[in-house]
Amino acid sequence: MTYCVGILTHQGLVLASDSRTNAGMDQVNVCRKMHLFVREGERVFAILSSGSLSVSQSVITHLRLDFEQGRGLARAPSLYDAARVVGAQVRHVAELDREALERDNMVFNIHLILGGQIAGERPGLYLIYPQGNPLSATEDSPYLQIGESKYGRPILDRGVRFHVTTLQEAAKFALISLDSTMRSNVTVGPPIDLAVIRNDDLRLTHYRRFTARDPDLQRIHFQWEHALRKAVLELPEILFDEDQEPSI
Amino acid sequence: MTYCVGILTHQGLVLASDSRTNAGMDQVNVCRKMHLFVREGERVFAILSSGSLSVSQSVITHLRLDFEQGRGLARAPSLYDAARVVGAQVRHVAELDREALERDNMVFNIHLILGGQIAGERPGLYLIYPQGNPLSATEDSPYLQIGESKYGRPILDRGVRFHVTTLQEAAKFALISLDSTMRSNVTVGPPIDLAVIRNDDLRLTHYRRFTARDPDLQRIHFQWEHALRKAVLELPEILFDEDQEPSI
Repeated sequence: MTYCVGILTHQGLVLASDSRTNAGMDQVNVCRKMHLFVREGERVFAILSSGSLSVSQSVITHLRLDFEQGRGLARAPSLYDAARVVGAQVRHVAELDREALERDNMVFNIHLILGGQIAGERPGLYLIYPQGNPLSATEDSPYLQIGESKYGRPILDRGVRFHVTTLQEAAKFALISLDSTMRSNVTVGPPIDLAVIRNDDLRLTHYRRFTARDPDLQRIHFQWEHALRKAVLELPEILFDEDQEPSI
Repeated sequence: MTYCVGILTHQGLVLASDSRTNAGMDQVNVCRKMHLFVREGERVFAILSSGSLSVSQSVITHLRLDFEQGRGLARAPSLYDAARVVGAQVRHVAELDREALERDNMVFNIHLILGGQIAGERPGLYLIYPQGNPLSATEDSPYLQIGESKYGRPILDRGVRFHVTTLQEAAKFALISLDSTMRSNVTVGPPIDLAVIRNDDLRLTHYRRFTARDPDLQRIHFQWEHALRKAVLELPEILFDEDQEPSI
């Protein structure tokens, strides 16, 4: 399984991904799911991938080959066009592999998040479906998730607001969202890749990889658990119909 | 959709359920999903239901009929036997309806949570599957969920501990878990039914129904959102590889 999240705020983009892959319960590996495509000063993209590892590797391989030869993502005139470039590669790999996969009852499964900025445009964030079609984040829905998305969603719903949330705050929300998912689903796991692309930097502004034993990640994990429990205990006592007294 | 949760602690049981049902997107109704079976001083059961409303209504109808005639749940010698009584009714309704449902490509879908106590036993908590087989909560896994369970799980994973959590705290965790789910999935909705069964009371110790406009529920909702955002902002600044300075 996988969990990746992208957050779009008024200051730029935060992207985060886990690194655990599994084929069945007994084949668990580490694999980077964050892929960077950068021409500093001109364009910067981060792509997060979920689904069949074989399929997403093929898509990234084709995108990388084109990029290095000055095609595809290297030439897309807008971020919308870049999302269409990614979608076209998804459809290309579907042509290569889908029939063979479905013959053995396997699903052609890939979801991608594309975040980035091209010079002259605002930064943006897209989800690309297995069918190749794109969906954009908006100011009202400023984050996108792929993979095991439900455990990590409540904290985003409560905290992330396009016009208010800073990049430092968005990075914290992304880490907590990942941490919540890893806590509840063992098939999502570290290292966590965390990237920040600030408006108009047109490069990767900040990047960090957190391993499971990273002391900063552990401190955040424990401080967060402690704060959550404290917040619950500090809620007003619940009164009941029978007596309207907090007498449990 | 539905979300129900049962929590077993050293002091007893907390059970909570939402009340929204929907058949498709345009037929949304309110329906109580918490069903009480009480013989004060002798036995107390709460059953929470999810899945096809028709199926769960039939199961509860048969259980109620038997109970009122002194059979089934009224006679089960242990909570394990009570879970088996519930499972037997699930299988009975499967015999009545499953074939007809599957003929039209509908799934025979029902999950139930049974919590309660019989005089002379400790309280207990069971999940009953659509196949009729029971699963018990344990001290290490002291809560059970049915329906849309993922959004509301992280807070339970972080907070609920059998030997530590009091009933008042468990009631708060259950409400927050419901509130998180309602926030992220519109097919889970109020009123919320909240019941407490304290060890050896052998009756419903406390009960309350929270409507959407309940001022106590709204206060808990807003205080919780505020506390969550504050807890994120108070986390240590995230440092990055490039500069190891909190310079976003």
